[in-house]
Amino acid sequence: MEDCIFCKIVKGEILSHKIYEDDLVYAFLDVKPVSPGHILVIPKDHHENIFDCPENILSQIIKVSKKIAQLLKDKLGVEAVNIFNNSGGVAGQDVFHLHFHVVPRSKKDNMKMGFIGKKDLNINLEEIKNKLVLES
Amino acid sequence: MEDCIFCKIVKGEILSHKIYEDDLVYAFLDVKPVSPGHILVIPKDHHENIFDCPENILSQIIKVSKKIAQLLKDKLGVEAVNIFNNSGGVAGQDVFHLHFHVVPRSKKDNMKMGFIGKKDLNINLEEIKNKLVLES
Repeated sequence: MEDCIFCKIVKGEILSHKIYEDDLVYAFLDVKPVSPGHILVIPKDHHENIFDCPENILSQIIKVSKKIAQLLKDKLGVEAVNIFNNSGGVAGQDVFHLHFHVVPRSKKDNMKMGFIGKKDLNINLEEIKNKLVLES
Repeated sequence: MEDCIFCKIVKGEILSHKIYEDDLVYAFLDVKPVSPGHILVIPKDHHENIFDCPENILSQIIKVSKKIAQLLKDKLGVEAVNIFNNSGGVAGQDVFHLHFHVVPRSKKDNMKMGFIGKKDLNINLEEIKNKLVLES
């Protein structure tokens, strides 16, 4: 993907604060951190979102995210983390190269992760379940 | 874990709207959904958070989360998803049995996922990077 900013970061054409790299995955500091130590974990190959990312790469992304969470605990004294992926513009995805956020959290930050604008819904769970059962 | 509500759901001692189950993972509708089709994906064994969950189980959780995201697209016409895990009370974890949320999103929901109370921070990325490099 010629114009993808994250592909350019992987190739070293744009500088980043690299935290980790292996054959499949690259991790670096978010330039607009929610909190100190906010890291993005991405596939080195271009995959737009979770829908089109192969399972073996997703698996490596989540394993590396766990390692990074532990690193944040060990090195920065972080107490907790939010790990998240927004897949699709409507979900808040801004760069269209799959990325998982690892956001360090502490008592002092006084933040709350949530859905701004969320309304109380009257949802029939039974009806939804009947549309959704997935065979293993 | 005797008093864990999610362990009881896995064992069938508390009813749930099950979407998927295999040897490692169980998925069911969140009873307090952010949007219709909001699903929780959990390990069947009790692991409190991402820090203490074995890699093979995390790997299966993220693969199942992807399958569920695709199911939501196929069956409910969902355009996008937020996938997230809060590990630690400070990060907003409420039930202390690891769970990944898969939240369906659409233009119509008029929500935004974000960090309420987030302040503008003056963070020295270079300084943080120097504390954090992870060997592959």
